[in-house]
Amino acid sequence: MSHRYDVLAVGNAIVDVIARAEEAFLEAEGIAKGSMRLISAEEATALYAKMGPGREVSGGSAANSCAGIAALGGQAAFIGRVSDDQLGAVFAHDIRAAGVDFRTPPATGGRPTGQCLILVTPDGQRTMNTYLGSCQELDEDDVDEERVRASAVTYLEGYLWDPEAPIRACRKAIAVAKAAGRTVAMTLSDVFCVEGHRADFLELLTGPVDLVFANENEAKALFRTTDTEQAIAAMARAARLAVVTRSEKGAVVVEGHARWDVPAAPVSRVLDTTGAGDLFAAGFLAGYTRGRPLPECAVMGTVAASEVIEHYGARPESDLVARVEAAFARV
Amino acid sequence: MSHRYDVLAVGNAIVDVIARAEEAFLEAEGIAKGSMRLISAEEATALYAKMGPGREVSGGSAANSCAGIAALGGQAAFIGRVSDDQLGAVFAHDIRAAGVDFRTPPATGGRPTGQCLILVTPDGQRTMNTYLGSCQELDEDDVDEERVRASAVTYLEGYLWDPEAPIRACRKAIAVAKAAGRTVAMTLSDVFCVEGHRADFLELLTGPVDLVFANENEAKALFRTTDTEQAIAAMARAARLAVVTRSEKGAVVVEGHARWDVPAAPVSRVLDTTGAGDLFAAGFLAGYTRGRPLPECAVMGTVAASEVIEHYGARPESDLVARVEAAFARV
Repeated sequence: MSHRYDVLAVGNAIVDVIARAEEAFLEAEGIAKGSMRLISAEEATALYAKMGPGREVSGGSAANSCAGIAALGGQAAFIGRVSDDQLGAVFAHDIRAAGVDFRTPPATGGRPTGQCLILVTPDGQRTMNTYLGSCQELDEDDVDEERVRASAVTYLEGYLWDPEAPIRACRKAIAVAKAAGRTVAMTLSDVFCVEGHRADFLELLTGPVDLVFANENEAKALFRTTDTEQAIAAMARAARLAVVTRSEKGAVVVEGHARWDVPAAPVSRVLDTTGAGDLFAAGFLAGYTRGRPLPECAVMGTVAASEVIEHYGARPESDLVARVEAAFARV
Repeated sequence: MSHRYDVLAVGNAIVDVIARAEEAFLEAEGIAKGSMRLISAEEATALYAKMGPGREVSGGSAANSCAGIAALGGQAAFIGRVSDDQLGAVFAHDIRAAGVDFRTPPATGGRPTGQCLILVTPDGQRTMNTYLGSCQELDEDDVDEERVRASAVTYLEGYLWDPEAPIRACRKAIAVAKAAGRTVAMTLSDVFCVEGHRADFLELLTGPVDLVFANENEAKALFRTTDTEQAIAAMARAARLAVVTRSEKGAVVVEGHARWDVPAAPVSRVLDTTGAGDLFAAGFLAGYTRGRPLPECAVMGTVAASEVIEHYGARPESDLVARVEAAFARV
């Protein structure tokens, strides 16, 4: 079945505000290191005032994945809601300039474009404080059925499972993709999302979702275990195809009784881990939609993730295709 | 004479939009590599649409210098006009978070905050396309006389010599500083500025300005020579104290018949030269206001400049004090 897009993703349209921070700052603010949490406009203003100088870079989990897929030569489209403001213009510019088809009209007159205040500690770990803003105004009308049908994979981020309207948008995208015989993929996004929407996520995984991405903490939270191997085994039973990412330990792909373990790609320096999971998904999906064997898809994921760890910001800055080719040349 | 600020700077309040670009892109757009040019709102919109994904980082020449002075432990204040918009909030946050006293109220309802679209080629050279926006609305009322009098050095950027209102602000700052027996410093900023305001700049240099910063191209343009040594000699005759920066060739300080040549500081990689001149001025002024000998001030300038070249963005990201200490330990 021919398709126009390899991957169409639905996600939060976010601009990241990245600042370095010491561990002591996180402690003083009572923010759990490495986590993602949702904050109100007032909390965002208060936290921003205390943060160091920032840099603004377009982000959003599924949007970062789209940028990675495009950087790897794939055709990607993104659906997400910015506002009609300067940061919305920045988001729209950056994703289009990355080669991603983005047409969702901006919200007008309401909340500003979503922002993620990211504190990066000296060890490269990122702690995310997200003000969703206009992301909450994404609704099912924004999901263009014709484009979903024209996409080999429809990819959803678990972060959307918070306000009602974006969930409706996801459910519509799933229904249209399934009716068209397309693949539905999703990421569990964060332990916070898994704990808040565990029943929904399990239903999706055992139902319409064909391919799921989770890191080991998310997998453990989903199956209420503290044991990674138990979580992987449970994932293999629940999902048709699943990938569990394990940071410096690489990734595990499970499909029924089959399992492949892939090591992490070498990293020259760990500067900012923001987007590592998003770029893993990008590399995997870029391989998957080209029909590459599953362990090769996972290698592409680890290589794409390794690039984004080496600099601030969650979108690729150097030649991902060359990096993937070099990785396969080493094998 | 005691003072509250080591340096009070008046400059354009700009947010940089930094994107990588190939040489061919500059050629196709007819933009001279390495230059600074002023563009209209329409030109900015058209160029931005063609640029690659960007990162937004606070900039502005004198503002960058203030951030550097603060990073070196100095007391810095900045006067410049943002607009009451998201990028204006970014600029205000970043300069305050850098430890710089910034109080100029934002403009409301008019032009947006100034932006500099910076194209960085693979050799690390930066080409700047500046839309001044609300910077043009800086006026003499924004120059707080009490704060000028409380500053050891009042520092002005040549970039301000374009619209009438900012020039009035500069002239007021100069008059107040001189009346209070303070030091007035300025940077010639760009060949474009020198060529447009040559007579004004010569009058300032031979008149109220006590300390002038220029790179070798600006010095050559000012004295209409193609010979660097002739330009340096002319600078020594015209100015009371001058520093001519020469990129990888280091810097030359001239004061009357005295001259000191200082080599460039080692750089691990040349990623983005934006802000190198601004940080040179920061390092020099930080030393100068602490009464260090002139060649040591120049070494501090080269060290501060070397840090900012190694990453994208024109403000320091690592510990400048440690870097300066390491440089003096090597001597």
